[in-house]
Amino acid sequence: MIDNSVHNQDLYYAARFLAPDQFLYLRSGGEDILVVPEMELGRARKESRISDIRTTSDYSVIEKLKQYGRDRAQSLVVSELLHDEGVTEVRVPHNFPVFLADELRCDGFKITPVQSPIRKLRSVKTMEEIGWIKKIQVCCEAAMQSAIDLIRRARVRRGILIDSGSDQPLTSEQVRTAIERTLVDCGCESDGTIVAGGKGAADPHNAGRGALSADESIVIDIFPRLKMERYYADMTRTVARGSPSRALSDMYKAVLDAQTAALEVVRAGTSGEEVHDAACGVFEDAGYRELFIHSTGHGVGLDVHEVPHIGIGGEKLKSGNVITVEPGLYDPEIGGIRIEDLVVVTKSGCENLTTIGKRFLV
Amino acid sequence: MIDNSVHNQDLYYAARFLAPDQFLYLRSGGEDILVVPEMELGRARKESRISDIRTTSDYSVIEKLKQYGRDRAQSLVVSELLHDEGVTEVRVPHNFPVFLADELRCDGFKITPVQSPIRKLRSVKTMEEIGWIKKIQVCCEAAMQSAIDLIRRARVRRGILIDSGSDQPLTSEQVRTAIERTLVDCGCESDGTIVAGGKGAADPHNAGRGALSADESIVIDIFPRLKMERYYADMTRTVARGSPSRALSDMYKAVLDAQTAALEVVRAGTSGEEVHDAACGVFEDAGYRELFIHSTGHGVGLDVHEVPHIGIGGEKLKSGNVITVEPGLYDPEIGGIRIEDLVVVTKSGCENLTTIGKRFLV
Repeated sequence: MIDNSVHNQDLYYAARFLAPDQFLYLRSGGEDILVVPEMELGRARKESRISDIRTTSDYSVIEKLKQYGRDRAQSLVVSELLHDEGVTEVRVPHNFPVFLADELRCDGFKITPVQSPIRKLRSVKTMEEIGWIKKIQVCCEAAMQSAIDLIRRARVRRGILIDSGSDQPLTSEQVRTAIERTLVDCGCESDGTIVAGGKGAADPHNAGRGALSADESIVIDIFPRLKMERYYADMTRTVARGSPSRALSDMYKAVLDAQTAALEVVRAGTSGEEVHDAACGVFEDAGYRELFIHSTGHGVGLDVHEVPHIGIGGEKLKSGNVITVEPGLYDPEIGGIRIEDLVVVTKSGCENLTTIGKRFLV
Repeated sequence: MIDNSVHNQDLYYAARFLAPDQFLYLRSGGEDILVVPEMELGRARKESRISDIRTTSDYSVIEKLKQYGRDRAQSLVVSELLHDEGVTEVRVPHNFPVFLADELRCDGFKITPVQSPIRKLRSVKTMEEIGWIKKIQVCCEAAMQSAIDLIRRARVRRGILIDSGSDQPLTSEQVRTAIERTLVDCGCESDGTIVAGGKGAADPHNAGRGALSADESIVIDIFPRLKMERYYADMTRTVARGSPSRALSDMYKAVLDAQTAALEVVRAGTSGEEVHDAACGVFEDAGYRELFIHSTGHGVGLDVHEVPHIGIGGEKLKSGNVITVEPGLYDPEIGGIRIEDLVVVTKSGCENLTTIGKRFLV
């Protein structure tokens, strides 16, 4: 693998070394090797789990840069490393850069893209990893509670929610800031937090903006990451104030039923597709199937979206998978509803890490 | 391009559509095409700058998933799109996934990795982009000021900084939280903020932890992003309380001189390597050259590290480049010093966006 480990979680998992610039990980003859920029050597030695750490200077990167330019210098460093290690064939992950693969092939190496074995390893969490996810889930719930409290305490004036503190309209942005402050104080970061009301919430990933209204659904989706340990949590609640329409309340009930049905079938050995089918079946029966436009869930860990996939083609679940179960309905004329819990898959079912209730009217 | 646009900024720049899951961007015959998952269609239509938006359902992704599995389904969708558009040769960026490239080559397409033209486009900022970077820089400076104020107001007790508010030791974590709160209130996010004191700061990317001491250097490096507009700022200051050693003060002066020398040569037409050479020259003369273990700077925009490169092999600067100038010295026995400004390259020199002073003792 060659990438930065802020974006590439397989690389972070393999090396346990967080770096914003590219470095290389090679497993050869059962031994792990890292090649990092010289400025990262001290930190890599202290932080990484790998003991054989080299720098690009060991492969004369500066001379290569001067002679061949940046792109070719990189592939020459990799070529020299592989040659020195006596490697002629390399299996690389699917997302390995094609330019570098082509250069190495020109240099005579056999490069075979494979489904990364690390991706599968990552999907089954150790007790330590589950501990980190539980820790971030506690922060996530505190943030969710602060958001729901703001909405619950708001007054309603001419159909608009009015913040009880400022006597001004309560906005998506304001609720999002309350969420983010809670998360920062917990040692978490978050990007893309959703607080979307009314018809805007009918786009599942719409972040939401402006004043929140009564009588409409408000989707709150929070997926923070622990800054130090790097693991995510993910949860969604949908709430309303005032008197939501019958159509909206019926949608809410269908989503709750679909989630209950999906959670009931989660266990090791069941496939992600079967969990998705359980949710789809409830929507089918209630006449809502076409308003459910995403999969039922996904794995959560170092990435907020990772395997296993809880949808069409979803693989068999294993004990130790941490997954979301999050059916939703989206009607551009009415609004959106989504309810999302985070659960650990067990032999006999699942442990639900999400404890906040699921009341629609708050 | 095929990627998510949270991590891949070329893709975000081309589409102006932020999505956490993979989507495809194709430019063919002067026309832009996006292919997104069905759940993103509504949002892509509203948010993206591209008008020809299709979904994977238009290419029967579910049937392909069921018949061929997830990986092959993706390449078959791409093959079908290219075939329908009458495309036989595709230029892809260097980091295009090798697996998909190989599959498309098997399907008869010619796939050529090229240096992404978008990468170069991105490096020259429009007035609008510079406006966003100035906006985030103001937040960044407010956060830096809150950090420096905490350190300045601390008392010194037995060589340890004591927080004036709590009467407890002032820690890296506490200063970082103060920085992050200021950033959240500004609508920014930040990851990896550095507040590193003493010998720990001799690793340039060490984030820092625990109680801060007097008489030692404290490196504060902040690189936040505007959540809405997605642009970064980047700045570093190094400060000390008490009586830092002569060795440390001399290092500080050399870094300041190196930065001044580098800033003086920045202008359109000068190369990134020449700016780096100016900093290196000062260190060489002062006998510090081997303690300067990184490049002098980098472009800043949608990525915190992007072209132009201000180091060996660094390309010619252009008006509208936004770059950091950040020489540093790192001595494992003494500590680290880094001073970083963010500047806009102009025809005659540069506009320095960083206004906070450079006093070592605070």
